[in-house]
Amino acid sequence: MSDKTTIGVGMVGYAFMGRVHSQAWRSVGAFFDLPLTPRMAVLAGRSKERTEAAAAQLGWAGIETDWRELVKRDDVQIVDICTPGDSHAEIAIAALEAGKHVLCEKPLANSVAEAEAMVAAAAAAPGRSMVAFNYRRVPAVALARRYVEEGRIGEVRHVRAAYLQDWIVDPEFPLVWRLQKDKAGAGALGDIGSHIVDAAQFITGQRVVGVSALTETFIKERPLAAESAGLGATGSAARGTVTVDDAALFIGRLSGGGLASFEATRFANGRKNAMRIEINGSLGSLAFDFEAMNELWFSANGGGFERILVTEPDHPYVGAWWPPGHGLGYEHTFTHEIKDFLEAVATGADPTPSFADGLRVQRVLEAVERSAAEGSRYTDVEDR
Amino acid sequence: MSDKTTIGVGMVGYAFMGRVHSQAWRSVGAFFDLPLTPRMAVLAGRSKERTEAAAAQLGWAGIETDWRELVKRDDVQIVDICTPGDSHAEIAIAALEAGKHVLCEKPLANSVAEAEAMVAAAAAAPGRSMVAFNYRRVPAVALARRYVEEGRIGEVRHVRAAYLQDWIVDPEFPLVWRLQKDKAGAGALGDIGSHIVDAAQFITGQRVVGVSALTETFIKERPLAAESAGLGATGSAARGTVTVDDAALFIGRLSGGGLASFEATRFANGRKNAMRIEINGSLGSLAFDFEAMNELWFSANGGGFERILVTEPDHPYVGAWWPPGHGLGYEHTFTHEIKDFLEAVATGADPTPSFADGLRVQRVLEAVERSAAEGSRYTDVEDR
Amino acid sequence: MSDKTTIGVGMVGYAFMGRVHSQAWRSVGAFFDLPLTPRMAVLAGRSKERTEAAAAQLGWAGIETDWRELVKRDDVQIVDICTPGDSHAEIAIAALEAGKHVLCEKPLANSVAEAEAMVAAAAAAPGRSMVAFNYRRVPAVALARRYVEEGRIGEVRHVRAAYLQDWIVDPEFPLVWRLQKDKAGAGALGDIGSHIVDAAQFITGQRVVGVSALTETFIKERPLAAESAGLGATGSAARGTVTVDDAALFIGRLSGGGLASFEATRFANGRKNAMRIEINGSLGSLAFDFEAMNELWFSANGGGFERILVTEPDHPYVGAWWPPGHGLGYEHTFTHEIKDFLEAVATGADPTPSFADGLRVQRVLEAVERSAAEGSRYTDVEDR
Amino acid sequence: MSDKTTIGVGMVGYAFMGRVHSQAWRSVGAFFDLPLTPRMAVLAGRSKERTEAAAAQLGWAGIETDWRELVKRDDVQIVDICTPGDSHAEIAIAALEAGKHVLCEKPLANSVAEAEAMVAAAAAAPGRSMVAFNYRRVPAVALARRYVEEGRIGEVRHVRAAYLQDWIVDPEFPLVWRLQKDKAGAGALGDIGSHIVDAAQFITGQRVVGVSALTETFIKERPLAAESAGLGATGSAARGTVTVDDAALFIGRLSGGGLASFEATRFANGRKNAMRIEINGSLGSLAFDFEAMNELWFSANGGGFERILVTEPDHPYVGAWWPPGHGLGYEHTFTHEIKDFLEAVATGADPTPSFADGLRVQRVLEAVERSAAEGSRYTDVEDR
Repeated sequence: MSDKTTIGVGMVGYAFMGRVHSQAWRSVGAFFDLPLTPRMAVLAGRSKERTEAAAAQLGWAGIETDWRELVKRDDVQIVDICTPGDSHAEIAIAALEAGKHVLCEKPLANSVAEAEAMVAAAAAAPGRSMVAFNYRRVPAVALARRYVEEGRIGEVRHVRAAYLQDWIVDPEFPLVWRLQKDKAGAGALGDIGSHIVDAAQFITGQRVVGVSALTETFIKERPLAAESAGLGATGSAARGTVTVDDAALFIGRLSGGGLASFEATRFANGRKNAMRIEINGSLGSLAFDFEAMNELWFSANGGGFERILVTEPDHPYVGAWWPPGHGLGYEHTFTHEIKDFLEAVATGADPTPSFADGLRVQRVLEAVERSAAEGSRYTDVEDR
Repeated sequence: MSDKTTIGVGMVGYAFMGRVHSQAWRSVGAFFDLPLTPRMAVLAGRSKERTEAAAAQLGWAGIETDWRELVKRDDVQIVDICTPGDSHAEIAIAALEAGKHVLCEKPLANSVAEAEAMVAAAAAAPGRSMVAFNYRRVPAVALARRYVEEGRIGEVRHVRAAYLQDWIVDPEFPLVWRLQKDKAGAGALGDIGSHIVDAAQFITGQRVVGVSALTETFIKERPLAAESAGLGATGSAARGTVTVDDAALFIGRLSGGGLASFEATRFANGRKNAMRIEINGSLGSLAFDFEAMNELWFSANGGGFERILVTEPDHPYVGAWWPPGHGLGYEHTFTHEIKDFLEAVATGADPTPSFADGLRVQRVLEAVERSAAEGSRYTDVEDR
Repeated sequence: MSDKTTIGVGMVGYAFMGRVHSQAWRSVGAFFDLPLTPRMAVLAGRSKERTEAAAAQLGWAGIETDWRELVKRDDVQIVDICTPGDSHAEIAIAALEAGKHVLCEKPLANSVAEAEAMVAAAAAAPGRSMVAFNYRRVPAVALARRYVEEGRIGEVRHVRAAYLQDWIVDPEFPLVWRLQKDKAGAGALGDIGSHIVDAAQFITGQRVVGVSALTETFIKERPLAAESAGLGATGSAARGTVTVDDAALFIGRLSGGGLASFEATRFANGRKNAMRIEINGSLGSLAFDFEAMNELWFSANGGGFERILVTEPDHPYVGAWWPPGHGLGYEHTFTHEIKDFLEAVATGADPTPSFADGLRVQRVLEAVERSAAEGSRYTDVEDR
Repeated sequence: MSDKTTIGVGMVGYAFMGRVHSQAWRSVGAFFDLPLTPRMAVLAGRSKERTEAAAAQLGWAGIETDWRELVKRDDVQIVDICTPGDSHAEIAIAALEAGKHVLCEKPLANSVAEAEAMVAAAAAAPGRSMVAFNYRRVPAVALARRYVEEGRIGEVRHVRAAYLQDWIVDPEFPLVWRLQKDKAGAGALGDIGSHIVDAAQFITGQRVVGVSALTETFIKERPLAAESAGLGATGSAARGTVTVDDAALFIGRLSGGGLASFEATRFANGRKNAMRIEINGSLGSLAFDFEAMNELWFSANGGGFERILVTEPDHPYVGAWWPPGHGLGYEHTFTHEIKDFLEAVATGADPTPSFADGLRVQRVLEAVERSAAEGSRYTDVEDR
């Protein structure tokens, strides 16, 4: 616990993602034996008053009202970016150029061009960089990856992934920033579709090499939000145009020869956060649904599916926590992410998912958008 | 139970489908109050010896070794076609022209052209005709249709359908007739994909109007079967080419503006007969999996999914059977189908699914094949 | 299929049990290769008119209005008793004395004394006898038994059995015969508690050796039924006393040293026919719920529970039916029962469950009633 | 966040319970708007070295090696007792007498006499006191309580509770303190049986008024643990006697006239932390299993069971956390407990579960032990 192992963290943004990242920074050291002790040094936000209140509540020692100041501070070695996607590239590149390590929320950026610039900056800079696809750190998802690596399901024939939510089913739900292309980049595709593409590539160890896609915006206009920052804002009389997709469906091919289907939607009435992935291989199968996040289902050689309660000490990340059967929650995926990131920073290893992994997802999303625009034509995913 | 209400049935084929149809003909009268009493008059098959044995076991009074004789018999008013798809059109048209009623196994035919000829023959003939998409008669599926009709889920946003089996995962599984295009017409697409297309169109009351598709044959060559008629035949040294798809994925649009995804595969290790369909609407959602065929899941207005055990007296078809909680099995879908068919024959009403409904499915399958052949391009489904 | 292998069956009663037995007699020969072909010779019931109608509908060749005539007929070799429990002993003993084989519905009798007389009659007579605990013939239950026999779960530590229904939750549900002690013998305890006691003894291969019990009648008076024969009869103004238990709970010890708990109730709102049994052993565990009757859950050595879809050809009874994943229903348990009974009759082997097995269940129920009457005192189950 | 609202906390013990309590003290303020800001002032443990390491890791400002010093400190207003049950009474009474507020782990004590002394001390002292039955703070359990209070299930007919674990199935698992009566008070009965008794009384709002019980110790001797403090210690050659129950089964009556069954065991192979409770009422039913802790199942009026994902903002405690579908874990039950405790301390209200509630559970456990010792005789639970 000596000073020389302490590392200063500065976080930009304190909404949903900022709250859960803070909880992870605050908790990680109590459960994992870390090579570096994070110090929650500074929080950046535009409003002084609100940022101060957030810092007090979330446990940050100081604040900045301009992220440009934050990335320059000497007491900050890690910059944690929890803002909407339109600012990721600018902040991350500045932080990397200032010699900081960077943890950036997903999707990596709002365009392939931005993501490429971020990858280039990461390659040129001394700091470590990581994109926060937190679902990789669900113990059940990490266990699925382990099973595939161990050859337990053989050759992958099928990936069947869906990310189903229902929070904008109501046509009177307001036009929040996540429904605006200039801020969010894309709709369900970017926000949640990116997660299932990353999860599919992570678990299988393969790339999505081509896609055929359909996208749709069911509700074209929505009430303007009094304030566009929160999910829960109430509607008003004036209406604006929804400029992102409400749902995206795509089918595609994997680099290993398998087939994959993906569906991202915010119109799946009754599904709250059903991030689901099923994988069928020549020797076995796996199935996961985040709504039951402590379970992984596994079938070997055509046998019945075993419900593995992923709470055993030898399951990924679980040994640090509670006895078997005492499940983890959503927030712990971030604790695991930050633990892995700190280890990478300490050892100089490349953390995963790297910015390059984030770009790989971005290229799939870009191919989806091109395919959807061009009559669902099968579209190769660029691979450089 | 007087003679005048008896109606003679002739069945062609006595393999899997013939066995289950026989059980339905034999049982239907004990449970439903029928306007006509079916008489299991004659079974047709090519081998005299085998057909006689089958007739004895399955309860048919006589046999024919040529279906052409069967369709001419005076004691046959209903012809039940349980052969592979390549003979459906010829038999059905002959039977209709002979003035018989026709119940024909699915898919209706091996091509759109054949299906069109069958629809034309049905329109011109005095008999009733029906295609045997038996899954419509799963009580839970019929209840799903009822819920949609009653407006309980509002506008349909998403259909998510999959039919998952795993019986040819093993590369040494032999080249049975279902893997040969000339006999089966198509692979997973025609055999099981047709069921989920029909179920989607039935439950939503809408048509699939366009599709974008990928198909794949994972195992290109297989051992020749000593006899290609049965699923369980063992392999041999000589190999032949698999000429049908192992899996078909497609996404598409519904006539009401919703999106749909379909997946038919025989390579979903551990899934035996997972005919699944989920529907998300503006007001509610439904979910079904045939592996738990007595259950329908329903969510109203974003609430939790209710597991409806579809065994109540007021559920479709269920009143004829047992008390609540005493579930039905696969075979009962055929009993229900035949009950409905007999009622249509008695009243002169058009049974559903009609040959036109079967053609509608066929057109979707044909668009899938065209799309898959043309780089997944979005392909309109013909609608005449 | 020659005449000498035909065996005549006479059935007494045509209500719920009679209907499902008829379906089994009618179907069994089409699926199983039987040593004897059953002939549905005669149905007995008190009302000539109703019995004739039932015989016509259910497929019985003739009728009798007095079961005493039925048991004397030369064309009847098997007597199938589907009446309420108060007449089991008299009919069964008469049939056995007349040299018939007897299949008797459960519970074997309404008292231990009657059951003992039946066992004695069975021992003295040339015919085979069997009590119809049909749940033994659920493939999943038979598979559970197989797993225990094979040592897959080791020593049995716990049995946790419940049979939950809800059909008399409504206080206005009428006083049908099943709620009258003189006809039904007992309430939930005898009707459904007997099933779980038999299932527990069958699967474990052990006896329940002692019990401690509580019983309760929640609704003491109910409307008199216009007709007391059917479950669905509507209420009337006059009321009568419920003379059986609404629910019975008991805990006990197994002959092998394990502990067991049992609960039988008709007041489990929302549970329709939840006949559940879980068994925990030193090496593994099993779990079953009839509401999902095609599934058996198995855990080996503390691992996750595998959902075995009991529809594989090598599972008990399943090879005679459909391909994997095409589930069976409630009625098939009777088809299996009758198949096994016919084989026993043909070979002269003792069928199981025998009348002695039925008596063994009766003794447990009797100990439950004694314990409940005596302050739940632990009460040994008689074992002679 | 001014100083005057800060309240000092001292915790005794830093094993499993100490770790999870620490996480709750550390996190609670970031999520709930508290009237008091807890300050993690001091941790007590016997070993100076270990306590210092634990304090550093878990975030406590100082340490004591004698809890007697801790309860005297001026910077401690709340004493949080996380030791085995044999020291609860002594520490809690001393703390209360020193004017502190006390949060005490469950079961309240190892005997009724101790628990009575604690209740008396709590009544006489100015501080608030609470026993840590954390499962009351599972959102799904709290929602179940809300549903019962709102009358949604009507009169309670049945409670069916089980707490199933399997961590001592292996006979070579060592003789840890939880298997020794002098330290743990009881075995499965006290450790996990206490939780389901409390949950049943909490959700129904009724008392268990009498019980009939069986207990068993399957493995009578076990290897002595090198160190008896941890669950994971490895075995050694020398053996000692297990002096607590391995499993306890009991059935009983509720103050409102319903029936209840309870089972607590550590021998349910494959069940890790299956704390289950089902309640059947005259109007509806509820079902919960901690292995899927974010789900509550609800049936209204005999309808299907609805799987309520208890992650909506209007569900108990949930509004403070994440969007719908982003589940919580085991640790959050403690965060909720501490939030409620701090509110009670601030307002002077009596927290629940109070020491009196803990005593009420203790009396049930004591009646269970008496009944088990006396041939399962139905034994009234004392109610003073």
